[in-house]
Amino acid sequence: MSFNSFGHLFRVMTWGESHGPALGATVDGCPPGVPLSEADIQPWMDARKPGQNRFTTQRREADAVEILSGVYEGRTTGTPIQLMIRNTDQRSKDYGEIAKTFRPGHADITYWQKYGIRDPRGGGRSSARETAARVAAGGVARQVLAALAPGLSVTGYMVQMGPRLIDRARFDWDAIAANPFWCPDAETAQLWADDLDALRKTGNSVGAVVEVVARGVPAGLGAPIYAKLDSELASAMMSINAVKGVEIGAGMASAALTGVENADEIRMGPNGPEYGSNHAGGVLGGISTGQDVVVRFAVKPTSSILTPRQSVTIDGQDTDVATKGRHDPCVGIRAVPVGEAMMACVLLDQLLLHRAQMGEGLRGSIG
Amino acid sequence: MSFNSFGHLFRVMTWGESHGPALGATVDGCPPGVPLSEADIQPWMDARKPGQNRFTTQRREADAVEILSGVYEGRTTGTPIQLMIRNTDQRSKDYGEIAKTFRPGHADITYWQKYGIRDPRGGGRSSARETAARVAAGGVARQVLAALAPGLSVTGYMVQMGPRLIDRARFDWDAIAANPFWCPDAETAQLWADDLDALRKTGNSVGAVVEVVARGVPAGLGAPIYAKLDSELASAMMSINAVKGVEIGAGMASAALTGVENADEIRMGPNGPEYGSNHAGGVLGGISTGQDVVVRFAVKPTSSILTPRQSVTIDGQDTDVATKGRHDPCVGIRAVPVGEAMMACVLLDQLLLHRAQMGEGLRGSIG
Amino acid sequence: MSFNSFGHLFRVMTWGESHGPALGATVDGCPPGVPLSEADIQPWMDARKPGQNRFTTQRREADAVEILSGVYEGRTTGTPIQLMIRNTDQRSKDYGEIAKTFRPGHADITYWQKYGIRDPRGGGRSSARETAARVAAGGVARQVLAALAPGLSVTGYMVQMGPRLIDRARFDWDAIAANPFWCPDAETAQLWADDLDALRKTGNSVGAVVEVVARGVPAGLGAPIYAKLDSELASAMMSINAVKGVEIGAGMASAALTGVENADEIRMGPNGPEYGSNHAGGVLGGISTGQDVVVRFAVKPTSSILTPRQSVTIDGQDTDVATKGRHDPCVGIRAVPVGEAMMACVLLDQLLLHRAQMGEGLRGSIG
Amino acid sequence: MSFNSFGHLFRVMTWGESHGPALGATVDGCPPGVPLSEADIQPWMDARKPGQNRFTTQRREADAVEILSGVYEGRTTGTPIQLMIRNTDQRSKDYGEIAKTFRPGHADITYWQKYGIRDPRGGGRSSARETAARVAAGGVARQVLAALAPGLSVTGYMVQMGPRLIDRARFDWDAIAANPFWCPDAETAQLWADDLDALRKTGNSVGAVVEVVARGVPAGLGAPIYAKLDSELASAMMSINAVKGVEIGAGMASAALTGVENADEIRMGPNGPEYGSNHAGGVLGGISTGQDVVVRFAVKPTSSILTPRQSVTIDGQDTDVATKGRHDPCVGIRAVPVGEAMMACVLLDQLLLHRAQMGEGLRGSIG
Repeated sequence: MSFNSFGHLFRVMTWGESHGPALGATVDGCPPGVPLSEADIQPWMDARKPGQNRFTTQRREADAVEILSGVYEGRTTGTPIQLMIRNTDQRSKDYGEIAKTFRPGHADITYWQKYGIRDPRGGGRSSARETAARVAAGGVARQVLAALAPGLSVTGYMVQMGPRLIDRARFDWDAIAANPFWCPDAETAQLWADDLDALRKTGNSVGAVVEVVARGVPAGLGAPIYAKLDSELASAMMSINAVKGVEIGAGMASAALTGVENADEIRMGPNGPEYGSNHAGGVLGGISTGQDVVVRFAVKPTSSILTPRQSVTIDGQDTDVATKGRHDPCVGIRAVPVGEAMMACVLLDQLLLHRAQMGEGLRGSIG
Repeated sequence: MSFNSFGHLFRVMTWGESHGPALGATVDGCPPGVPLSEADIQPWMDARKPGQNRFTTQRREADAVEILSGVYEGRTTGTPIQLMIRNTDQRSKDYGEIAKTFRPGHADITYWQKYGIRDPRGGGRSSARETAARVAAGGVARQVLAALAPGLSVTGYMVQMGPRLIDRARFDWDAIAANPFWCPDAETAQLWADDLDALRKTGNSVGAVVEVVARGVPAGLGAPIYAKLDSELASAMMSINAVKGVEIGAGMASAALTGVENADEIRMGPNGPEYGSNHAGGVLGGISTGQDVVVRFAVKPTSSILTPRQSVTIDGQDTDVATKGRHDPCVGIRAVPVGEAMMACVLLDQLLLHRAQMGEGLRGSIG
Repeated sequence: MSFNSFGHLFRVMTWGESHGPALGATVDGCPPGVPLSEADIQPWMDARKPGQNRFTTQRREADAVEILSGVYEGRTTGTPIQLMIRNTDQRSKDYGEIAKTFRPGHADITYWQKYGIRDPRGGGRSSARETAARVAAGGVARQVLAALAPGLSVTGYMVQMGPRLIDRARFDWDAIAANPFWCPDAETAQLWADDLDALRKTGNSVGAVVEVVARGVPAGLGAPIYAKLDSELASAMMSINAVKGVEIGAGMASAALTGVENADEIRMGPNGPEYGSNHAGGVLGGISTGQDVVVRFAVKPTSSILTPRQSVTIDGQDTDVATKGRHDPCVGIRAVPVGEAMMACVLLDQLLLHRAQMGEGLRGSIG
Repeated sequence: MSFNSFGHLFRVMTWGESHGPALGATVDGCPPGVPLSEADIQPWMDARKPGQNRFTTQRREADAVEILSGVYEGRTTGTPIQLMIRNTDQRSKDYGEIAKTFRPGHADITYWQKYGIRDPRGGGRSSARETAARVAAGGVARQVLAALAPGLSVTGYMVQMGPRLIDRARFDWDAIAANPFWCPDAETAQLWADDLDALRKTGNSVGAVVEVVARGVPAGLGAPIYAKLDSELASAMMSINAVKGVEIGAGMASAALTGVENADEIRMGPNGPEYGSNHAGGVLGGISTGQDVVVRFAVKPTSSILTPRQSVTIDGQDTDVATKGRHDPCVGIRAVPVGEAMMACVLLDQLLLHRAQMGEGLRGSIG
């Protein structure tokens, strides 16, 4: 049990607050001998970094990772890796007022009720800033995956912002990094830009759906009941700030399907079984099939908005709350690299679990 | 780490196969002094039991729970509770053929690939029969919750079968137990009966959405990052066989909302904060608000269907598979008591975790 | 966290009381494909079984293991293995009196204080009978070790009973199974027999020291800090009823040594490093060296004795307690197979952990 | 599972190497609202700090703790506490030679064999310097214990150095802090000083026995089987570098006792049961009795000694190794504050576990 960790064998504990001196991740269980330096992690940090365009918060953080332990002469040693990110742009201001009211839809109130103490500076621990530490840990996971499962890749993108969905017919992997929304459909990206500009002007925010796909995942990862691959992914994605729903493959839509429609039919291909469809999202009975692992999650709209909403104070007085400051109008955008990081961490963890119980490779062959 | 357990302090390990001599759950961490007998658990077992009407599998199991340990003179002792359910209707037949082919959409193939061995009798461990053990454990959790959080109740029901949703305007708590679908809308229940009769005749199956609501959950349960209440619920529900998506509160639909719409506004009531809506599903920042905790999950259609689907054999030959035998045309129906059981287990576990870190009650008061 | 489990990947949860219908162990994480039947486990059960000679309790239990799950056609499937042992000789008697007093040196009083309820029938969960379940789990571990680490063997024996130690000059592996004390020194075994006969007549009991040696343990098992091999072994052995001390290699005596004396010098042999001595007990820095892993533990004298001792009742009255009934005069004897079982479980667990992080084999070669 | 953590609910993960930029501990699960500042922790750090007298290594470290997270306005928030200690006196030198040989009795060789990579600078992760992080975490545990169990105190001291034991008749609590050996017997402390001066001159080192006593521990802490208080303490103490044996109460000597001698007789006192002796070391059946909890552990002599010992190189060549540099002639001395820290962490963890399952206080009263 750990309140702030995830993973079983590749285990990540994140720590730190939005406005403290630093935050980070302590990574335990990393295999030794894997090439790792700050430069390997930084690109993923930069992808999540705020203030890069007008669609994300204007807080300016270098988000520079420092590796304090667990690496010697450019390789992991198998001992804990401490990843520290200093906070540099935590503006000093008077939090006296904020500390006494609760933003509707924000963790302010539950933190207070649970702990009887909260760090109001930028939301403290409940800030989306915590996800920087996850992205750093995900960077380590990616390095290890590159060594252990060379063909495996993890890619995230946004498929919905507000009520507007992408057109899957225009899906283009190359478009994803070419717009500020990680959108695989360039045309929709342009419409989202217009949508979001309009929303920002009214002091409002909007939700989104992020999809993360892992290609090249070997069959056999997962376990029958509670360490199921899909169960682990659901837990991982739902642990990201503001996520309210998680789907694997056909997801919620599978409820409307019949068994005949939902069956991913199989035919023997040159390299083993091939599937005619992927309603399963690459997971059957909690175990990977070798198809793409497909996860989607919904990110609710940012609760810190300029439009006043009804709320109460710590003293039990009714009040109206409008949140000034630097906030993401669509926090879903920056959740894309975070979802990727969680996918990478879960897959690596499952790979190690599989290797523990089974040894290298699969046990059962087909054909 | 445990491949077949869930929970941190109230910890449940399930064991057993569909066609072995017995299956069950080992429950660790139960508080002592709680009244418990087989009779307290059996009603929940009966709710999940197959063969009670024409809409579920015709396998006939008494699903009688035996308490083998952890109870003395009608009260829990604080030591492990072994709950055993004997299998009584595992028909002997020739599994030679089944053991050599894989049902599309079924765990047959991934179990084989991972383990290199599988128990083909009724799906072995991947059978929905495993959920009987969860319901037994959930029965224990309910008894403890009754002692520790007297006002707390957990109720599940189906809100969608195939493409047909209930009409929330007709929602009636009393209707739920009065039809074979746990449907809170009697009118829709009748339509589902017709839908399912038609499907069964064509050898097909269908998916469903189950909603589980916990009322009377105290504020403060959960934790900021990975032991988040919603993350735990997502993991728990996704671990149920055939579940492909999990939502909290507004769920996937929250993506289409603006911050203004999504904010659950607060006003001071006579007994503390009152919320004007519940898009959050009772969870903010991973911690319960005191509102109803609302979880929904999609159950895919049963993969064992009479209609032949393309597949392969263990020897790598293309084949067509049609599954005869006693299968649920809509396994979502029997997932309702299972979802309730998982909710009860998660809430109790969180209650114990909260009590560990905070002592009794909440730390922060409002007003 | 689990109050009644041990192990990380090869995970054992024991359950059941001395006088309930049954007790057992739920084993999770077992690799698949390993040959396993009741017959593989029973010999270890028989070694621990009471009533085999006049030096152990006269309770007569068949201690027959039933495998309820996790094995199909004689091989493990990789899913949980339920091992059940029915209690057959739990004599009915009036426990009213016993339930109201506390035996000095027994868990009676702490169970009562902690839980506010206790099962007085034969000590309930605190009975040495719980160790039967560990031996069953150890039998599974041995089968897996035979497959994964063929040269590995685990042997336990008694090296001290009361004040009398064995003479290491007379150490004979073959003597161990040839006397009722698992004593590697036949001459001392005879003296112990006389000692124990005398003690039994006076209604007294005596302590013992058990040593467990694992030969053929590969180098590299363990971890630097808290999953240290020695730390895990200490925890495992100290968890056995009545154990009050645990030593690795030179153990407590290493305090009296100098660094010069304690250094296990190394020379290169034909198959790698060879050690001139084994003060380390096969563990350096928490990781196995490839030498014999040597653990010793002290078992206190049975607290249930005929000689009256001062105590109190549940109502706070002073009283004198003399325990009639069937008790082991030296419970250390039956702790030998239990210590072996714990060693087997720990080593297998560590082997799986090593394989998870490192893959197969060692990473660093010498020479 | 975590290779570098300990504790279940009060959970500590240590990280960092002897010669990296920093090391530290990430503490999860700390109750909120507890007063905590660097100044509360520093005194315990200073007690362990090297270079304070001629009997410990001459490395000079400020061992200044920085709290990077989890504390707001002088109180814990209930979120992870990051404790960082910068390394300041890691002398640069050529490790080329050292990296190629193995010190007999040191983790050099097993780290190499396991990981295939090791940080030779000062032993890297296997350095006793890692224990600084534990002492910092222990400082946090002490603050929480002061709040939750006000009468509880933890005190460690040395009872043996080399073959020389203290005289218990001269035991004086006030003497402990008055000599460089944490020796409760001033006369023996003087003899140890002479002993150690002589040993240092010959380039040798020596072992020791440390005893840690916790007074004011409430009855009821612990659990029946694997989360036994004594099992947890054994694991915690054995995880300290160089520890080879752990005893509770009478420890290994209990083997020589009879049941009559070993029984800690009970009489009713004004505030509950009172015990006539404490062979049990305050633990019965894995659960605290309310008596002093008494743990002892043996620390082997430092393996880094000036006297040459036979060893091998990484290339498989025989060689002789003499370790120059700044090493503790008796590392047992500095293990005293470490043992205290581990005791504090374990007791707090158990307190939280007890509170989780039982609520506040004991369940069963006597009298």
